[in-house]
Parts: sequence; C-alpha cells; structure tokens
Amino acid sequence: MTTQAPTRPLSPGDTIGILGGGQLGRMLALAAAPLGLKTHILCPDPDSPAFEVASSFTIAGYDDISALDVFASAVDVVTYEFENVPGPTAAHLAERVCVRPGPTALAVSQDRLNEKTFLRDAGIPVADFARIDAAGDIAQALAQLGGTGILKTRRLGYDGKGQVLLRDGADAAAAFQQIGKAPAILEAFVPFEREVSVIAARAVDGTVRAYDVAENVHRDHILKTSTVPAALDAELAADARAMAERIADQLDYVGVIGVEMFVLPQGAESRLVVNEIAPRVHNSGHWTQDACLVSQFEQHIRAVAGWPLGSAERHSDVVMENLIGDEVDRWQEILRDPAAALHLYGKSDTRPGRKMGHVNRIRPQRA
Amino acid sequence: MTTQAPTRPLSPGDTIGILGGGQLGRMLALAAAPLGLKTHILCPDPDSPAFEVASSFTIAGYDDISALDVFASAVDVVTYEFENVPGPTAAHLAERVCVRPGPTALAVSQDRLNEKTFLRDAGIPVADFARIDAAGDIAQALAQLGGTGILKTRRLGYDGKGQVLLRDGADAAAAFQQIGKAPAILEAFVPFEREVSVIAARAVDGTVRAYDVAENVHRDHILKTSTVPAALDAELAADARAMAERIADQLDYVGVIGVEMFVLPQGAESRLVVNEIAPRVHNSGHWTQDACLVSQFEQHIRAVAGWPLGSAERHSDVVMENLIGDEVDRWQEILRDPAAALHLYGKSDTRPGRKMGHVNRIRPQRA
Repeated sequence: MTTQAPTRPLSPGDTIGILGGGQLGRMLALAAAPLGLKTHILCPDPDSPAFEVASSFTIAGYDDISALDVFASAVDVVTYEFENVPGPTAAHLAERVCVRPGPTALAVSQDRLNEKTFLRDAGIPVADFARIDAAGDIAQALAQLGGTGILKTRRLGYDGKGQVLLRDGADAAAAFQQIGKAPAILEAFVPFEREVSVIAARAVDGTVRAYDVAENVHRDHILKTSTVPAALDAELAADARAMAERIADQLDYVGVIGVEMFVLPQGAESRLVVNEIAPRVHNSGHWTQDACLVSQFEQHIRAVAGWPLGSAERHSDVVMENLIGDEVDRWQEILRDPAAALHLYGKSDTRPGRKMGHVNRIRPQRA
Repeated sequence: MTTQAPTRPLSPGDTIGILGGGQLGRMLALAAAPLGLKTHILCPDPDSPAFEVASSFTIAGYDDISALDVFASAVDVVTYEFENVPGPTAAHLAERVCVRPGPTALAVSQDRLNEKTFLRDAGIPVADFARIDAAGDIAQALAQLGGTGILKTRRLGYDGKGQVLLRDGADAAAAFQQIGKAPAILEAFVPFEREVSVIAARAVDGTVRAYDVAENVHRDHILKTSTVPAALDAELAADARAMAERIADQLDYVGVIGVEMFVLPQGAESRLVVNEIAPRVHNSGHWTQDACLVSQFEQHIRAVAGWPLGSAERHSDVVMENLIGDEVDRWQEILRDPAAALHLYGKSDTRPGRKMGHVNRIRPQRA
C-alpha cells in the first residue's frame, strides 16, 4: 500500500491535476471552472480533447518520471479519468501529492480477481468466480460453476484477447492460449435481463450520495443509451443505490464511482449482481449534466477538492444517447430538438466505434 | 452603416472570436465547448478570467489594428461581451469577418439618444426624453417633462460623471458642467415599483425565443438578485416578453439581448417601460444556467454560430444572487446548500463592488 501525501481542502484558484485528456477529462475541466478551480491535464496524446478547455496541460507519457514530478509540483491534488493508470505512476505521484480516488480503488478495479474478491468480502452480490493461474485450473473451476463460465483475463491490455465463453468439456489449453496465458478468472455465466448502473460520490468526510439508477443499453459492446428513471421497482432501486454507497464506503473512496449491475430474474422477482466498478466518472452518468443541478463531473471535482458534495437530486427525467462514429453527423438535427442538449467532445477524427459526443433529452419528471 | 462580411453557418471545430475576457466571455467560452466550438478571446487585460477556459487568446488593445487583423483571420465569427466595443474596432472587424450582433445593435445601445429614439420609433414604451446639446436646452426640456428629469450623458466613459437629477429651477449650467458638457439627454423621472428584465435570443433565420421575466433587485447600483418567476401578472409578463422579441426583430438582431424594464403603477394596474437594452448576454440572465436546459450563454453561441436556437423553457424556479466583493468568501457555505449552484469567475483580486461570482438557487416549479 502506497503512502498518500496528505492535503488540505482546496481553495478557489487552486489546481486539480487530471491524468488523461479524453472526453471525461474534458468534462471534468469544464465542471471545475465554474467552481473557480484550475485544471492541469497530463496526457501523452498531443490532440487530447481536454487540453482545449484546461488551464494548462502537459504532453507526456505516464511513465515519464520527470514530467510527473513537474506535474505533481504544479497541482494541489491529482485525479484521473481512466482506471488503468499504471500502478507505478500512481505510486510515484501519491508520494508527492494527494491522489484521489486513492491507490486501493485503482488496485481493486485494475484486477478482476481483486475486484470480485473485494466485492464478495464486502457482502455485495457478484457472479460466482474462480481463480485461474494455469490451463490446469480450468476443468475444476468449470465443474464448480455448473459447467459454464466466461474466462476473463484479470488485467486488461493483453492485445484485446480478453474473454472466452467456455462450456463443459471445452479445450482448456486452447482457451488459456487464446487469452494469452495471462492470469485470469473464470466467472459464472449470468443470464441477465437488463443492465443498470449507479453513480455515487463520496466526500473526504465520508458523506456518500448516490444518483438515481440508470438503465443501460449497449450496442456492439459500447454503451448506447442510459435511461433515468430505470424501469425497476422502488425496493430494488434502493438496493442498487445502497450497494454503490456501501462499495464507496468499503473502499474509503473519495470521488465519483460508477457501479455496473445486472438485473436477474428470480422467480417472479428480480435480483441484482454487481458486474464491475469504475473508479471515475462514468459514461452512464452523463445524464446528470442536464437532469440534475450538480453533475457527476462537478460532484467528482467537489470530492477530490475536499469540498462538500452537492445534491444528487434529479429535476427531470432523461435519456442519454451516445453519438458513436458518424452518428455525430446528426448534430444539426439534435440542435433542432427542443428537449435535447448536445455535448460534443471536440474530436477532429471521426472513427467507427469512437465516442464523439452524446445527447441528453429531458422531460418533466413523472409524478 | 458598415458592410458586414457574410458567413456560412459554423461547423463543430470552428472558432468563435470574443471581444472581452471578463466573466461573460468566460461563460460564453464554457458554453461553446460542449457544442464542439472553439473560442478565441481578445482582451487587453493579461489577467482576463476568460483566457483560462478558451481555446486560445490574444492580449491586445481594441485599437491594435494588426492584432485585430490576425484575430479576424483566426476566427469564423466575432461576438463581444460588452456593448462599448469601440465603433472603429467593430467596423474594422466587420469588413473582415462576420460580427454578431451586428453594428446597428452597437450603434443603438452605445448612445442613449439613439437607443430611446429607436425604442420609441419601434412602438416600445419608454420614459419621455429630450435631446440636450448645450446647457441652454435644459430649461425647455425640463418644462416639457413636467419639471423633473434626469440628465444623462448619451455615451458612457466621461469619468463616471454620468447622471444628475434635476428639478424645476435647477442651475442648468452647473448640471451640464457636472456631466462634463457632453452630449446628453434629459429623461423624465419614472416612479417605478419594480425592475424586471427579459433575456431574448434571435437566430439568423429570424426565430426569436424569450426566456421568462426576471425580477431584479439592485444594491449600490449593482444587480444583487434576479428572481424567476417575477411577481407579475401573466398578461404583463407576456407583454414584457413580446417587447423584447419586438426589439430583437426591429434590430434584425442575431444573438442574445438583455432588455431592462421598469414596472410602473397605473391606477390598480401596472404598466411597463423599457429602460435599457444590452446587446449581449446579461447578468440578469445568469439564472438560465441552472433553471433551463439551454442557458443564455449557449443560446448566444448557437445564434452567432448561425445555428438553430434551443428551448428557452424553464424546468425550475430560481433565484440568482450576485457575489460582490468579499461576499465571495461565502463560497463554502454556498457549497453546503443542496439547492445552490456556485459559479465563480476565477478572479484573483477581490475588490469592493467587483462581481466575483454568482449563485443560482433552484426549487421545483410552482404548479
């Protein structure tokens, strides 16, 4: 466990350092400005969308120690827009400046085994899973999970060879080969009906606020829409929010966290299992920009600044739609829709599968 | 009348040039970014709050012709955050790049005589007024206005010697001396009950949208609060919005305009007179940031970009409070208020009377 440099609450005029210059960093910078806070983005990509709206920026690799040192001395706290911040980068920074969310959240979310183990130990329902260190572990794990499972690398970054669905009698050696012989877990297959998520925030003083549950639809493994309120009965929705709050508490978390869940049928009822946590602002929380007084971006900035959280109340119902690839060409039609708020990320290059922007469509809350 | 350089509608990635780098320029830049538009601020003050959030900026005087030429060639359209853009600056730019709102709006709003004359000719109720070119004009004008009037310079910038209240038999020569012997108007004294304002926007295609009427309270001649809805009967509120729309139409206006009005008692009824127009986003429209899907800042950006206007509907009731001078030190208390959204301008120097930020407090709309 890395020692964290301590910090005082920030004051207006102070600077938040952000690792990563994509759309999340950009929207964090845009949310920091009205609070009187400056932002300094560090990102290796010279075309980072966040540079344009930040007070200052550094083009450097995450392993550039001298750049990290200059960055650390130029900012009052560090946060990040992506969970795969390299461990040594986070550790190096944390010795020099307070990093929020802290190292535990990164360690847990970067490794599926750590993540599932942490969640299970915290009393959060997750799909059954088993640790896989070698092809020889697979047969027993498959039997234990009832004959079906998904083999997933513990960490990302193995050339996309991430996941393989296995059934009883599958060729374990071939499957293990397919994921690059990397440390892995075998996870029980979950026959879910719907996907939902909860965005929660936790302040330095331990206050936790969860936004309303969003119902998410994916297309080609990319989030397409988030709808709020989700079609979930009130008790289950309260459970979902309570789970996100418990996770934030158990991680002694500071900032915004995204918690993805599956809704499973259970007789006439439904139940929830947590699929994944993201220690950052989350695509399925973009709806908060236009349906709440305080967005997830402002909430994250408040938390990492050591400030009180804002309200997570919602004033409108909302559907968020991602604009992926050339869907962004619909911007003119969106501007003509009186219920729509357009959010473009300032990316010059439109590529298939690339998130180019999103649109929030609001309407008065159902009574 | 200056010839305006024509322009096509902007596309995402294009750049809006903004004259003036104060809080209005800053909030315009923050509103342009989510629409995928870049901003370039030109301002002589090296500490301009807007520089920090703009894509680029130029530190130069408004009379620096070579800087204006570079600026004009770097942007796709020009707008401004203050109505006292020097005429030669606007004319020089307008020959090179489209300036919105156009030169007519500036010419009208920079000169009280032009403004009152324009409004009266447009059928908008204004206080009676008379042109004063010399001290000798005052006695007759006073008689004509019923014996009381306010002597006001036509243009600003005469060392603050702006206004003198005159009664029958006043020393005309002394009064004229007091306002610097500048061209002036004498305006009838208006015994108003309340001040209100309407923020309207007009698009290139002539579409006009007015926001709801705000009721404004001033303190020491500085706006202190704007409350929406205003305590005005529905018919008068509709009249107020219609007047703002008519003014925008008559000016062939493009952008957001602020129209300040007085509410006068008239027997058991009330009536409105227009006091002043501001060809720009307006302090009494800051409430739109948190009570509407589309703020006055986004609306102005849409209009000057040649884009369709957004909705001017309101989803919440709201009170905007300016944070003036050391009132900004209350930022921590404001952050703890769940109904409040804090907006700080990033000014490092707190001075008495200086606008440092504002807060919008929202609540659900009264049914």
